Amino acid sequence: MKKVFASIITIGDELLIGQVIDTNSAWMAQELNKAGVWVKRRVAVGDAWDEIWQALDAESRQSDIILITGGLGPTADDITKPLLCEYFGGKMVVSPEALANVKHIFERVLNRPMIERNLKQAEVPDVCTVLNNKRGTAPGMWFEKEGKIFVSMPGVPHEMKGMMTDDVLPRLPKYFAMPAIASRTLLTAGIGESYLADRIKDFEESLPAHIKLAYLPNYGMVRLRLTGSSDTQEAIDTTVQSLFETLKEQVKDVLVTDKDEPIESAIGQLLLARHRTMSTAESCTGGYIAHLITSHSGSSAYYKGGVVSYANEVKTSVLHVRPDTLASVGAVSEATVREMIQGVLDTIDTDYAIAVSGIMGPRGGSPEKPVGMVWIAVGNRRRVATHQYNFRFDRRRNIELTATYALNMLRMFIVEQEPLA
Amino acid sequence: MKKVFASIITIGDELLIGQVIDTNSAWMAQELNKAGVWVKRRVAVGDAWDEIWQALDAESRQSDIILITGGLGPTADDITKPLLCEYFGGKMVVSPEALANVKHIFERVLNRPMIERNLKQAEVPDVCTVLNNKRGTAPGMWFEKEGKIFVSMPGVPHEMKGMMTDDVLPRLPKYFAMPAIASRTLLTAGIGESYLADRIKDFEESLPAHIKLAYLPNYGMVRLRLTGSSDTQEAIDTTVQSLFETLKEQVKDVLVTDKDEPIESAIGQLLLARHRTMSTAESCTGGYIAHLITSHSGSSAYYKGGVVSYANEVKTSVLHVRPDTLASVGAVSEATVREMIQGVLDTIDTDYAIAVSGIMGPRGGSPEKPVGMVWIAVGNRRRVATHQYNFRFDRRRNIELTATYALNMLRMFIVEQEPLA
Repeated sequence: MKKVFASIITIGDELLIGQVIDTNSAWMAQELNKAGVWVKRRVAVGDAWDEIWQALDAESRQSDIILITGGLGPTADDITKPLLCEYFGGKMVVSPEALANVKHIFERVLNRPMIERNLKQAEVPDVCTVLNNKRGTAPGMWFEKEGKIFVSMPGVPHEMKGMMTDDVLPRLPKYFAMPAIASRTLLTAGIGESYLADRIKDFEESLPAHIKLAYLPNYGMVRLRLTGSSDTQEAIDTTVQSLFETLKEQVKDVLVTDKDEPIESAIGQLLLARHRTMSTAESCTGGYIAHLITSHSGSSAYYKGGVVSYANEVKTSVLHVRPDTLASVGAVSEATVREMIQGVLDTIDTDYAIAVSGIMGPRGGSPEKPVGMVWIAVGNRRRVATHQYNFRFDRRRNIELTATYALNMLRMFIVEQEPLA
Repeated sequence: MKKVFASIITIGDELLIGQVIDTNSAWMAQELNKAGVWVKRRVAVGDAWDEIWQALDAESRQSDIILITGGLGPTADDITKPLLCEYFGGKMVVSPEALANVKHIFERVLNRPMIERNLKQAEVPDVCTVLNNKRGTAPGMWFEKEGKIFVSMPGVPHEMKGMMTDDVLPRLPKYFAMPAIASRTLLTAGIGESYLADRIKDFEESLPAHIKLAYLPNYGMVRLRLTGSSDTQEAIDTTVQSLFETLKEQVKDVLVTDKDEPIESAIGQLLLARHRTMSTAESCTGGYIAHLITSHSGSSAYYKGGVVSYANEVKTSVLHVRPDTLASVGAVSEATVREMIQGVLDTIDTDYAIAVSGIMGPRGGSPEKPVGMVWIAVGNRRRVATHQYNFRFDRRRNIELTATYALNMLRMFIVEQEPLA
């Protein structure tokens, strides 16, 4: 079966001055992959006529599907729509369905009067199929030219996502024979990328040509992803599943989860299976661990809450850390995180808890307690486990690493304390 | 003065399967812009020989500087280094300085034994200048060909950033005459992109050709950025500054900050100027507001801490919300967020506080309290202001919007309660 290739073009000066991080492309790539489309290239260009035109030419020489996001806003710097009109040889007309949608969004959703500028958003080239935008005013546009598909979508992430899910992905199989795709992902912790690669070298080298293994390192953890494509779903499912079981066996001592999920979701599953709850007591991570956990719908079933004890007085008044402890060994110490665990277990009344205290930088370090020094404790009412780490990165990465390591400590602690039959 | 153009090429299958969001490109683009280099295109390609080769050819036809990240890891799927060696007509040799660095990183930083695979990282093409990687084992490589500069850097963000700052950016002015660049950014809240565009239409149309205005909408706020380039720094500084003052005047009623900073930093400045402190009581945002505030070094001077009261029992036990209130009007109500403000001001003892309670979805909604319904309160000991919002997005965006709106309410509340002379 012939592979189907896609290119993603994102348009906007904001991408080239770096004011915006492009999260759209990653999401689109994931969805295209699941659908059996190979993303060949991703290109970002500015709001410049020649650049966009040239990108359309170049990408359509390489790919069957060209997905375009951005450049459709109501302000003057957006030139994408007139360009597409000329590129595909059409003329601008008001789309009645797009106009009805613009009116609907303003009347029902935004509750604001509409201005002339917004009405312009209902104009589209007459050579496109309009894709309705349920979440915003800029319509999507579907073009076909010389056997290639071009789709222009707004750059606002939730508008683009809705349009991809509702319209774009379901239409593709009518145009292309899509291969069957299967993939399985697992997450490891506590082993570096090179060590992991060495350990699974033989496995990797023995993989058939249609199966790919990807290493995705992130925050001290490495995700491994096996992907394969074939003509029939059953064949590729069986092959990938069987190889995945072999891979899992080889990394079982460092395995966090055999699903494509973050560690906090894996912890949620452990707690749900044991009918347990947890809480957090965060100093240096400032609420980031709580945020990771509560990013997932359903987390209220196992996460009751937390205390961000940024100031020492919050550690004493809310978490009942003893003033003596803070005076003698300081906030960044094993004794303090131990007492924070006891305090948060009492205050919030949960089965398990995480406590962290450290110096994230760039300021606040000292010779004895340098930037990057962190104490982590995890525990229940019977036992508390602690560990000290020294991270050497910037503030953001130190916070992210602390959160990841703390979550992994809790994961191991739960499994050790309450192994399931 | 001739403009200096750059292209950014990111290499790695992980970008094309969407497992990784590319944050490197945005950072690199920002730094290049500050240095007076225009980023023309950003391209992501997979770990495929022909794709990378072709991208090098194509980008070097368009740009003076080609920055490449990724593809330098120790695992089998990285083919970038041998490709660069062939592309620039060199042969692989062990770089003594890169080898010394690999050994140093393993012995001093990672504290782990080195394996064969890691030694390979010290091999480089003999036609490049090695850029030392202080934060990791993969060396950077600087090539010159036909008047163009090519730099290959690791994809790990903090390694790439260190190399850009220490080596790449300082070297560029030796090769190119860089124009002087000036830019000023302001942040508005409470006005949509189209309304803002209408309001400043005349200003925008009167801008000279060498000054650009960019609209950067995000989470219900719009950032406006004026950028210009010229031969002398003084000339462009004066022009941009004077236009910026005009722009500021036109948006003064919706102005959050006239610096390129997020709203939580603007609040920090307000609190510092008034010698005030704040705390947070979060239900539906689950620690995200605390995380935003504590992402900034120095926030401990005004942020004392917070309570993540995810479960109702935490609202009553830690924040002293009355059980009667929860029973009669529920957790997502004006009365509850008012009591959460009182509770957190008492428990954490600060001057100002934020409280939020809502339904972020996708589950948990009801006809009376649909997904996206949020109550926000901000207050001090004298007064509490509340507002109800109805967001209509996915969980992630609902959380981000709630945080942004809550922070903006607090900002306005502080300015109103304690205007400075």
